[in-house]
Amino acid sequence: MNKNSSNIMALAPSTSNKRETVCIFGTGDFGRALGHKLIQSGYPVVFGSRSTQAPSLIPKDAEVLSHAEAAQKAAIIIIAIQRQHYNFLTPLAEILHGKVLVDISNNLKMNEYPESNAEYLAQLVPGAKVVKAFNTVSAWALQSGTLDASRQVFVCGDNMQAKQMVMDIVRSLGLTPLDQGSLLAAREIENYPLQLFPMWKFPIFLSLGLTAFFFFYCLIYNVIYPYVQENQDFSFFIAITIANQICPTLALILLASVYLPGILAAIIQLYRGTKYRRFPDWLDKWMLCRKQLGLIALAFASLHVLYTLVTPIRSFIKWRTSSQTISQALNNETEPLDNTNAWLGDSYLALGILGFFLFVLLGITSLPSVSNSVNWREFRFVQSKLGYLSLILCTAHTLVYGGKWFLYPSSYRWYLPHAYMLALIIPCIVLVVKFVLIFPCLDKPLTRIRQGWERNPQHSE
Amino acid sequence: MNKNSSNIMALAPSTSNKRETVCIFGTGDFGRALGHKLIQSGYPVVFGSRSTQAPSLIPKDAEVLSHAEAAQKAAIIIIAIQRQHYNFLTPLAEILHGKVLVDISNNLKMNEYPESNAEYLAQLVPGAKVVKAFNTVSAWALQSGTLDASRQVFVCGDNMQAKQMVMDIVRSLGLTPLDQGSLLAAREIENYPLQLFPMWKFPIFLSLGLTAFFFFYCLIYNVIYPYVQENQDFSFFIAITIANQICPTLALILLASVYLPGILAAIIQLYRGTKYRRFPDWLDKWMLCRKQLGLIALAFASLHVLYTLVTPIRSFIKWRTSSQTISQALNNETEPLDNTNAWLGDSYLALGILGFFLFVLLGITSLPSVSNSVNWREFRFVQSKLGYLSLILCTAHTLVYGGKWFLYPSSYRWYLPHAYMLALIIPCIVLVVKFVLIFPCLDKPLTRIRQGWERNPQHSE
Amino acid sequence: MNKNSSNIMALAPSTSNKRETVCIFGTGDFGRALGHKLIQSGYPVVFGSRSTQAPSLIPKDAEVLSHAEAAQKAAIIIIAIQRQHYNFLTPLAEILHGKVLVDISNNLKMNEYPESNAEYLAQLVPGAKVVKAFNTVSAWALQSGTLDASRQVFVCGDNMQAKQMVMDIVRSLGLTPLDQGSLLAAREIENYPLQLFPMWKFPIFLSLGLTAFFFFYCLIYNVIYPYVQENQDFSFFIAITIANQICPTLALILLASVYLPGILAAIIQLYRGTKYRRFPDWLDKWMLCRKQLGLIALAFASLHVLYTLVTPIRSFIKWRTSSQTISQALNNETEPLDNTNAWLGDSYLALGILGFFLFVLLGITSLPSVSNSVNWREFRFVQSKLGYLSLILCTAHTLVYGGKWFLYPSSYRWYLPHAYMLALIIPCIVLVVKFVLIFPCLDKPLTRIRQGWERNPQHSE
Repeated sequence: MNKNSSNIMALAPSTSNKRETVCIFGTGDFGRALGHKLIQSGYPVVFGSRSTQAPSLIPKDAEVLSHAEAAQKAAIIIIAIQRQHYNFLTPLAEILHGKVLVDISNNLKMNEYPESNAEYLAQLVPGAKVVKAFNTVSAWALQSGTLDASRQVFVCGDNMQAKQMVMDIVRSLGLTPLDQGSLLAAREIENYPLQLFPMWKFPIFLSLGLTAFFFFYCLIYNVIYPYVQENQDFSFFIAITIANQICPTLALILLASVYLPGILAAIIQLYRGTKYRRFPDWLDKWMLCRKQLGLIALAFASLHVLYTLVTPIRSFIKWRTSSQTISQALNNETEPLDNTNAWLGDSYLALGILGFFLFVLLGITSLPSVSNSVNWREFRFVQSKLGYLSLILCTAHTLVYGGKWFLYPSSYRWYLPHAYMLALIIPCIVLVVKFVLIFPCLDKPLTRIRQGWERNPQHSE
Repeated sequence: MNKNSSNIMALAPSTSNKRETVCIFGTGDFGRALGHKLIQSGYPVVFGSRSTQAPSLIPKDAEVLSHAEAAQKAAIIIIAIQRQHYNFLTPLAEILHGKVLVDISNNLKMNEYPESNAEYLAQLVPGAKVVKAFNTVSAWALQSGTLDASRQVFVCGDNMQAKQMVMDIVRSLGLTPLDQGSLLAAREIENYPLQLFPMWKFPIFLSLGLTAFFFFYCLIYNVIYPYVQENQDFSFFIAITIANQICPTLALILLASVYLPGILAAIIQLYRGTKYRRFPDWLDKWMLCRKQLGLIALAFASLHVLYTLVTPIRSFIKWRTSSQTISQALNNETEPLDNTNAWLGDSYLALGILGFFLFVLLGITSLPSVSNSVNWREFRFVQSKLGYLSLILCTAHTLVYGGKWFLYPSSYRWYLPHAYMLALIIPCIVLVVKFVLIFPCLDKPLTRIRQGWERNPQHSE
Repeated sequence: MNKNSSNIMALAPSTSNKRETVCIFGTGDFGRALGHKLIQSGYPVVFGSRSTQAPSLIPKDAEVLSHAEAAQKAAIIIIAIQRQHYNFLTPLAEILHGKVLVDISNNLKMNEYPESNAEYLAQLVPGAKVVKAFNTVSAWALQSGTLDASRQVFVCGDNMQAKQMVMDIVRSLGLTPLDQGSLLAAREIENYPLQLFPMWKFPIFLSLGLTAFFFFYCLIYNVIYPYVQENQDFSFFIAITIANQICPTLALILLASVYLPGILAAIIQLYRGTKYRRFPDWLDKWMLCRKQLGLIALAFASLHVLYTLVTPIRSFIKWRTSSQTISQALNNETEPLDNTNAWLGDSYLALGILGFFLFVLLGITSLPSVSNSVNWREFRFVQSKLGYLSLILCTAHTLVYGGKWFLYPSSYRWYLPHAYMLALIIPCIVLVVKFVLIFPCLDKPLTRIRQGWERNPQHSE
């Protein structure tokens, strides 16, 4: 559709009726893609290039001129050129005076240069109004129209009017401009496309570390101990049995660690008697990555569910079930139904199912589009009330399942308790402290502190 | 990043290049958070406070003045003060004349006061242009930048220009302004953050009621009857067996109740011969909460799937299977494969899987971000066609599974039918009526009525 | 945008406080719904109608006048009338001169008329500025406020100012305007609401075709062959056994077909020595529907998981397990645990679980709201790195499960290999070629080509 529209738009006569011309320096991938998109949106586009011979891939309706000629035709010039070649702009400084220069460049490494590309450009052409924009958009996405990755365009610059002009262009391309302030923000904006899940780094390293620890712990407990003590080869436990001990353990610990910082913050506020002092840095950082911790916990919980559900199709389990049945049949004995066992078994499964169900609900409400459509009170209700309920159910699930092991001495191998017992420590602490904090003697002062009351007001200055 | 940038922006000389100063009355949490954010976005901020001694937590680049002095410096004044203290504004009325006052306050209860806070403010300072905004944003979210909950800012006010100025500020903070009309909408806007899933109330109460009913029904049928009649203790059925009867029953009934109002509406329109008369209120309300009903049905269906899949790991089931096998082995009998049974068993599972799969698809397409990226025809295709297909499959799944029980007298305990039979009533009615409505003799007039045709046109005037 | 609007607002004298009047021609469903919404947003609305007697359903605050009178009251006239009746506008041409006419009409079929409705309107009233808008919004959604389907309003028109005015109205109704260029785009915009998942057509037909093929293949292999050769009736295999062979086969083939075009593109680029020549059309199209192929593959994979997990509750499987156990018990034999078997069984399940888990992660990141909140590098990391890892795990899962069948002659029935062997062909090719492309001798030139280097530079002109 858009090819047609651009062809014929060139015919449209009255120029008063048209958008302002945009100039693009550079005919590389991104320059061409942006030019194409601008023409589609009704902007006359002129390219500035070393050779004014139009390459075959330049959009048909665009003019190609020398840099100087092209710059004179437009108030906005998009610099689609790599930082290393910016110095060719120095001789053009006079022509570029007062123009809006849009820096769209990215670097290959974070903080590659002492100053951001946009600031460097502003130094080279002091008379121009430099605006940083478009660096988060990919040429391929612009060209194919499949803007699956972000539609957000970060914009910054020292001149309000220039920034406004660029933001209007961004908006008319169907993208969302986000004003990030003065040109100083350019460094941050240039680093953004090079980021790889920065908020996820700590949660992922934490869970990898815990996974490694619990893997070796369970390996010793489930494989090495039986091999050394009873000469039995259970090495195949690694694939599912051990994985299915690591997953629930990590899910529970990480879920508890989502609620632990809130409890620590409450204790600190109670102790200090004011909310007007900053938390230690580590606590601030921990609180900001709670969502990521929760989602990783959910991932482990989901794996635990899958690992558990395949239990009856495992060769080992099938063999064990059938050999137990056969030995009973051969001994001619039929066990009666143990009602307590049936209760315990069913209720631990039911607790697990309900806990996991609430956990998935929490995960769904943390999807950006869902959390955007609830108000703050609803969001907190789900994340706090339902979250604690889920933690309680999951802890109870583990307690009912593994609780009996606390009593049997045989469950301590080489004085090591079963992994489930370790998994229960943090969740139980969180739940007990939370329970204590609910008592009015602690809850009342805490609420007052959070509303701004201070025990020793001089502290706050 | 932004702290630094804001520090230096204040140094920038040319004021023509700057945004307009914004004044904030009040140095509480929200006032400070908003001030900080405004400075980041390039607005000079001046605080109006009782004590002009800047508290330690006020953003560095902001000035703190007396209320009167601060008000004179800006055209827009954000009132970050609780409604109870609004009367201090009365003496300032002269200074505030013509200014834009932004009311950001919330109440603790719905409809706490006879008039909204914004209208009260407009009465107190008659010369000012009052705009309601920002009340849906949380201070914590503003401060930490994690605007997980809504980015939407509802704006209303009687003066178009004032509203436009506030909406421009909202947009430059990276939030989305939504114009809600005149200041009369303030009441609605002030109630919004106090809402707790208002659209979910009826569906949740309905499903809770049905859950309670079916719980006691199944308790009588599965636990009390065997206990009274055969003195068998099946109390452990509560944890999973009964839960797994309640869940599919409710899933099916609620799914059918999503399509029931559409069918009632069609019958009413056919009977009246016109679409130009309003439906009864209860039907209107029912139609508006169909999405919520469907999602709760999906939640029950998911629980049913989990409860069913854990069946083979339940102690009771393991015991029953093994004791059946042992008794067969001891009696030296080997049953041949019953082909009909295999067909029935497999097809009821297959129907359930396909029905659940379509149901999950429906759930995914009702995620806000997914439903936003399809057109109206596609949305209706999925929600209507695939929805009915899912209902048909789930009803067939239940019929194939529980159909045989209609025939056995033993499945009536104390004259009570099995819960599955009750579950089938509404879905079957919906499907039969829908099937009848498809016939041309009814479909044709219905289509014409929906296109605006009236049987007795005088009715519509 | 706002400059213009505020300029004009500034001109309006005492009414500066009000929005401009909007005229709507036509009092049908959509006209009324739009009028209602406009009044809510503060626009005075006047309806133009044949009979000036206001029907009961017209919003109360709206005036109803004759077409000519109504048109004179407003600068913007929304034509809420079907194309067939447009010719009544011809006599009004003089009054409509210079007005903004908003065409909101849709057709019943794609490309029903030689020119779009908006262009036809522009021909009928040459002096007016025609803008196409609102055709993607449904009257019911406008009225009930449940804009679940798209909030996007495509806007196009030849006059920039007229378009801007309409886009301002769109924005103030809480909808998102998307500028699509000149009025030529109207055809595309009018076709949009009639589309039914156009991007999904090829992937769905492909998977339906493959499903049909594999269904008959598995039917011959699993049902007809045993019936003919051994006279055994396994017809009930259709419900689950065969379905559970089709699903994983298609999931694997479709997942591989997501990565195949990328590999073909790399080979073409390496062969041509340049990236500046277009790919063949079929490859371009294939690359644009990779997301859809991947999501269908995920659907099949999910079905496979469900079909597999219900295995132990199937009547046939229960019968087989129990009869095997009984026969062992009767023969008084107890098989020892086969360690290799336990390893194989557990590792194929573990590989499948991890592969499916990564696959679901891929699916979640392709939700619009999630992919919008990651940067380009993160999106590519997930879709490419995790995607390949998922493909490797799923292929390994299939190899470990079905690998042994390559060796047994009994798995060839009528010279036909088992479906799993066919399923492995494309994934294995993709993984082997990808592995070869990673070698530096191929990876280096490919990277240089993708950065713009050309082997024979004359080619590009």
